Amino acid sequence: MATIKPERLLSDLRTFAAFGAYKTGVHRPTLSAQDIAAREWFAERMREAGLDAEIDGIANVFGKCHASGRKVLSGSHLESQNHAGWLDGALGCVYALEAARAISEDPAMRQVGVDVAVFSDEEGHFGSFLGSRSFTGVLDEREIDGATNRVTGLSLRQALVPAGWADRPRHVIDPSRYAAFLEAHIEQGNTLENANLRIGIVTAIVAIWQYRFTVVGEQNHAGTTSMARRRDAGLELVRFLRMIDQRFPEICGPHSVWTTGRIDLDPGEKSIIPGKAEALFQLRDADQAVLDRLDSALNDLAQIANDGGRCRLTVERLSASTPALMDGALQAALERAAERRAPGQHIRMPSGAGHDAQWLARKLPAAMLFIPSIGGISHHWTENTSDADIVLGAQVLVDAIVDVLQS
Amino acid sequence: MATIKPERLLSDLRTFAAFGAYKTGVHRPTLSAQDIAAREWFAERMREAGLDAEIDGIANVFGKCHASGRKVLSGSHLESQNHAGWLDGALGCVYALEAARAISEDPAMRQVGVDVAVFSDEEGHFGSFLGSRSFTGVLDEREIDGATNRVTGLSLRQALVPAGWADRPRHVIDPSRYAAFLEAHIEQGNTLENANLRIGIVTAIVAIWQYRFTVVGEQNHAGTTSMARRRDAGLELVRFLRMIDQRFPEICGPHSVWTTGRIDLDPGEKSIIPGKAEALFQLRDADQAVLDRLDSALNDLAQIANDGGRCRLTVERLSASTPALMDGALQAALERAAERRAPGQHIRMPSGAGHDAQWLARKLPAAMLFIPSIGGISHHWTENTSDADIVLGAQVLVDAIVDVLQS
Repeated sequence: MATIKPERLLSDLRTFAAFGAYKTGVHRPTLSAQDIAAREWFAERMREAGLDAEIDGIANVFGKCHASGRKVLSGSHLESQNHAGWLDGALGCVYALEAARAISEDPAMRQVGVDVAVFSDEEGHFGSFLGSRSFTGVLDEREIDGATNRVTGLSLRQALVPAGWADRPRHVIDPSRYAAFLEAHIEQGNTLENANLRIGIVTAIVAIWQYRFTVVGEQNHAGTTSMARRRDAGLELVRFLRMIDQRFPEICGPHSVWTTGRIDLDPGEKSIIPGKAEALFQLRDADQAVLDRLDSALNDLAQIANDGGRCRLTVERLSASTPALMDGALQAALERAAERRAPGQHIRMPSGAGHDAQWLARKLPAAMLFIPSIGGISHHWTENTSDADIVLGAQVLVDAIVDVLQS
Repeated sequence: MATIKPERLLSDLRTFAAFGAYKTGVHRPTLSAQDIAAREWFAERMREAGLDAEIDGIANVFGKCHASGRKVLSGSHLESQNHAGWLDGALGCVYALEAARAISEDPAMRQVGVDVAVFSDEEGHFGSFLGSRSFTGVLDEREIDGATNRVTGLSLRQALVPAGWADRPRHVIDPSRYAAFLEAHIEQGNTLENANLRIGIVTAIVAIWQYRFTVVGEQNHAGTTSMARRRDAGLELVRFLRMIDQRFPEICGPHSVWTTGRIDLDPGEKSIIPGKAEALFQLRDADQAVLDRLDSALNDLAQIANDGGRCRLTVERLSASTPALMDGALQAALERAAERRAPGQHIRMPSGAGHDAQWLARKLPAAMLFIPSIGGISHHWTENTSDADIVLGAQVLVDAIVDVLQS
């Protein structure tokens, strides 16, 4: 029976955390010196595990096993957000490696195996899911040409040069090779912690619909323009956002979330009535019907605002992804494994964050497993998970992979 | 009978507009080369009118008449906002000069006269009402030391050097010299135009109470943080601003205005729940009781927001001036003059903008006269007033000054 080695798992995770260590977390942006070193180190660990490991032309690290029978693909990403947590994507990479090792060490599993993939730039330093989109064949050269680091402005092409990967070909998935893709990740929220649970089985990865609201009014003097005469774009925006705040809870799904992340009033001066106002608004849900309903409500509310107000409000949808449904049989396999290792301490839940698995789900049956985030903290250097939960999650993943490989 | 000369008046105004001409308006910031030249030119016009004119150590231009009897002080400011209108403060300067000329030209008015004052930097390029506060004795050397241009960063002390005014003493008012201060100005709003009126008699200059609202919540991931768990500082600010929007119309005065000029969400990213939100909010009214009532309502609403919300909202009053009441007898004099020259086409109204007269009102009985702004436009190069209204206003001002000088 394939069994993980907790000391090896935790030791690898802690070594990973040394690449770009920052306080108790890591600062390891895509293709920074510390990220390049971490990829090389991880490729070596893959080779030690008996995988043929190569880093490709977009910095994906891909390790192939030699099994002749059924195979599963597992992995995640290893760069971090700026000054962020030590686990995040690194956890899913080390879990996949440990699964490959544990299964290859089980004499009963000789014919089957696990390939390990590390997808580049899931955190979006240069673009949007560049690694997993490259691996699943939906990233063209033109987009790579245009990808630049959002902080430094360095192009992706230039950033690949110091690593020696600029001219390498890119790995592309052979879907016929795999029975499934499984990814593990920290929850990044506190659903598990609050309910005293230890394993989350992801039902779907939410779609993200991004909007810009623009209100055009009339810029004017804040002292000499009467309230009756004003066309205050900022005030009209506030009224619209409050309408959403009142309407959405009546029609949303149980897991819907919506966020106004940014508001800009123009010119933004204390004594000037804003002539223009903009907001960035985001909607996430795993249920297409709910997304459609909320989108339609936004347009209805805009109509009401324009009919009753003195400004011109427009709702512009900037992007709209589709929810990625996780495979039902894989969810069942994860649930059986969770029930065996942590009876009654698991739950099915959607993922509110995006993950590489949403791209792999287009090519393979895919599923995800979550382990708890202490305090729900994510994308901050204080992010953490207990060793016991880290070890438990790895074994649940291995059990589920074994289940798939033997089915 | 003191009578203005329309051609002389309009010609002086048009010459003024050549100093820093910008499209159909002017760009004449305080102590720019064009502003310095305009002051020198205006001091010469004062001398031609028989006044002893001097520019002082803060760039105020002060012209004294030789009359032995009753005297009135009149004037305004001559610098402009950036890329703004040709009339604004220049109008009140030329009106005062024309009043001094018209009255000195009337043989019946030999014993009385008009002093003319041009107050520096009313538009606040370097500070807050520096010229009129200097003239009324409430500006100390320390504040001048610290005054810097809000665009260029140049200190006021340095800016005075090229003009040769840096080491001059500053004129300070002798209140015993004057029966009154009168200032004319464009309305900067459209109350007059909308009601088809030609003269506004200012009852009071509003007080401006400036606030900062700060909401502290919890920064978090916009995908993984459930609506139930969020402490969204931006949303809480929106709710508070909407509460004000609903409550204030019920308790405000007939001329109250309030404005949210700026909103900042921190960090202002589309996928991050704002952990902090700030707004700049401003309240203007000429009635102290109304100001107190609205201020108290802000604190009550903040209490309600804090009791019901999940963030911490604070209302911070950054500044609170007092309304400047215009003198009743002077208002009556202006009203008699307006009724004579434009029967039924005048109205008493508060000034929603600040003016030098609010500082002079602390030392002398003071009053203001408004003429219409076409389309209510102000602080923009398209600002304008018809020649007929310009000419009418000057004569009404002269009539009112004569009234005061003869009473």
